[in-house]
Amino acid sequence: MKIHLFKSLIAAVLLIPALLHAQEFPVIDYNVSVAEVVNAQKAWGKALVAISKAYEKGGRAEAESKAREVINSAYAYDNGHVLFKPTLTVNPQTFRTTKEGAMAYFVGNNGAFPNDDGFALKGWRSCEIENAGMYIAGDLAITMGKVRLTDKSGKVTEVDKTWAFKKRDDGKLRIVLHHSSLPHSL
Amino acid sequence: MKIHLFKSLIAAVLLIPALLHAQEFPVIDYNVSVAEVVNAQKAWGKALVAISKAYEKGGRAEAESKAREVINSAYAYDNGHVLFKPTLTVNPQTFRTTKEGAMAYFVGNNGAFPNDDGFALKGWRSCEIENAGMYIAGDLAITMGKVRLTDKSGKVTEVDKTWAFKKRDDGKLRIVLHHSSLPHSL
Amino acid sequence: MKIHLFKSLIAAVLLIPALLHAQEFPVIDYNVSVAEVVNAQKAWGKALVAISKAYEKGGRAEAESKAREVINSAYAYDNGHVLFKPTLTVNPQTFRTTKEGAMAYFVGNNGAFPNDDGFALKGWRSCEIENAGMYIAGDLAITMGKVRLTDKSGKVTEVDKTWAFKKRDDGKLRIVLHHSSLPHSL
Amino acid sequence: MKIHLFKSLIAAVLLIPALLHAQEFPVIDYNVSVAEVVNAQKAWGKALVAISKAYEKGGRAEAESKAREVINSAYAYDNGHVLFKPTLTVNPQTFRTTKEGAMAYFVGNNGAFPNDDGFALKGWRSCEIENAGMYIAGDLAITMGKVRLTDKSGKVTEVDKTWAFKKRDDGKLRIVLHHSSLPHSL
Repeated sequence: MKIHLFKSLIAAVLLIPALLHAQEFPVIDYNVSVAEVVNAQKAWGKALVAISKAYEKGGRAEAESKAREVINSAYAYDNGHVLFKPTLTVNPQTFRTTKEGAMAYFVGNNGAFPNDDGFALKGWRSCEIENAGMYIAGDLAITMGKVRLTDKSGKVTEVDKTWAFKKRDDGKLRIVLHHSSLPHSL
Repeated sequence: MKIHLFKSLIAAVLLIPALLHAQEFPVIDYNVSVAEVVNAQKAWGKALVAISKAYEKGGRAEAESKAREVINSAYAYDNGHVLFKPTLTVNPQTFRTTKEGAMAYFVGNNGAFPNDDGFALKGWRSCEIENAGMYIAGDLAITMGKVRLTDKSGKVTEVDKTWAFKKRDDGKLRIVLHHSSLPHSL
Repeated sequence: MKIHLFKSLIAAVLLIPALLHAQEFPVIDYNVSVAEVVNAQKAWGKALVAISKAYEKGGRAEAESKAREVINSAYAYDNGHVLFKPTLTVNPQTFRTTKEGAMAYFVGNNGAFPNDDGFALKGWRSCEIENAGMYIAGDLAITMGKVRLTDKSGKVTEVDKTWAFKKRDDGKLRIVLHHSSLPHSL
Repeated sequence: MKIHLFKSLIAAVLLIPALLHAQEFPVIDYNVSVAEVVNAQKAWGKALVAISKAYEKGGRAEAESKAREVINSAYAYDNGHVLFKPTLTVNPQTFRTTKEGAMAYFVGNNGAFPNDDGFALKGWRSCEIENAGMYIAGDLAITMGKVRLTDKSGKVTEVDKTWAFKKRDDGKLRIVLHHSSLPHSL
């Protein structure tokens, strides 16, 4: 992977004369950048940890409040359905295309989703993201890779994760697709 | 879901006067349609079955030839990396971003991928696709849902699947992302 | 151009079975349609006439109020610069990439734009749009064609016009580019 | 405009840590960059001069051959209609959405386009491009600004020009829209 890093530095240096000449006029650019996507991924991890800590500090009420805030700011449910396949859901409620289904997955306690026990309440402490690749087209970015979550006992849960982020008109990124799955074991 | 169908018929009828008035000039449209995406999904299923049948009829050589054809025509490896997480891969070869890795997964027999036994050689006979939702932005479409594969013994394998398709300049769709996972069991 | 109309009707009929089968799941679609673009073009014409009538009815104050409303709702200045080359502007103020420049063009009376006499105040009564073609890519549409404006004396002014519209997250279209020019005369 | 330049340098410096961390994985990016667009603009100018010089050196045959090459490589006619409003065309042939119409404009001598005298044959020697702004969305870029063409006598022709370029799957940019007009005179 060293070669990719090297190419990037070369690219940054090659970019400088282009910027010197090209940018002396306003550029309205709706495209999303690699850095914005990486930041949005990190924000997701921090938000998950924040829900866990809210639960430990303030109980269910505070966890639900934080989860609602996270779902509203990180996911695009206010624009319609989100394609969300969480790690631990099962038939016939595998897919959580509505906000209610996402809330149930993160904090549980919803009789309509009896198998949800609150994924975000499991004492998460940190989140490491290792991208296998990223695809960018306009204001949309899709990422695939490993995500490793560590809980307060130090136990690490690894998942295979695909995210699609849309950069909105306000410049903020929202998750429009999220597919998470436990690694296959032979 | 009946309501969605109903809305679509209304939409088709409402579309007619717009078409009558609006289209009397050339329209160059790069966007992908729902119908094109559904067709590309079905083509993937047929291609998987075709590899199985090629194997049964002509052995490894014919299966490899068919798999190479399928990977070249259904996936976008000729444009660079594809974000591919097949159903049954494991660390450290979970992601198959290169064509060689995809070939190994589908037909096996590659010493560099010792855990691959050829997913496409397992006697597949049919493929049913049940979409949970579709996201469309320009020439890119992302789908999420259930895919059920039936083999020659009648056994059904169900997977949770996310695909991203890009409509190319030539009008053909290619898979740029594919995340497949076995359903979680409680 | 009859052939284009014919093709469109065929397309609408061919679409129906696809809709019947494909749409039984939520589709989140950010793409702009031909009908939406045609409606946005018509809305621009109506807005120009509305400024003229506001001026005649309520004088400068009402014209300015209406013009500000039109610029805010039809153009994308609230997202940054708009690429706007009005019909009658001259060096060194040919391009009106800011809202102030657009306002000056439409209603005049701005000392910083001494050559502007208020294009929208010229007694416009109707606007006819004849597209030469349309280009669609995702949420962006570009149109080119003739626009004919008729004033209260019945005099017709014809311009060659290019517009680019962006469909925003809220589903509304905004002008991001507008190039208007008087026809060349030999 | 100095402030834009300054911001760009800051942006380039701020980009470096992001690149150092973010890019250690493959990124498939279909978006077009400012530098690519500026290069495509310059290439258009050079191509126009090349047709003029081919004409002077080799007569009509060489000019037509060069013009055909330029139209094929710089414009997207092989993907369908192009929205092209050349500087000097008049009713009823203002718009040149087909390759034949573009050829007639550049080299004339086509009985079907009696008013065309060959714009590219007018002894052009250089082309200066001054952008008023650029709009970027995915693989599409739209530019607006002044273009100044100098002929062999030193005479300068200034036009107001809008271009839309699409970056194709092969990474090359093609013109999908071109609106050129002489500056208005009061």
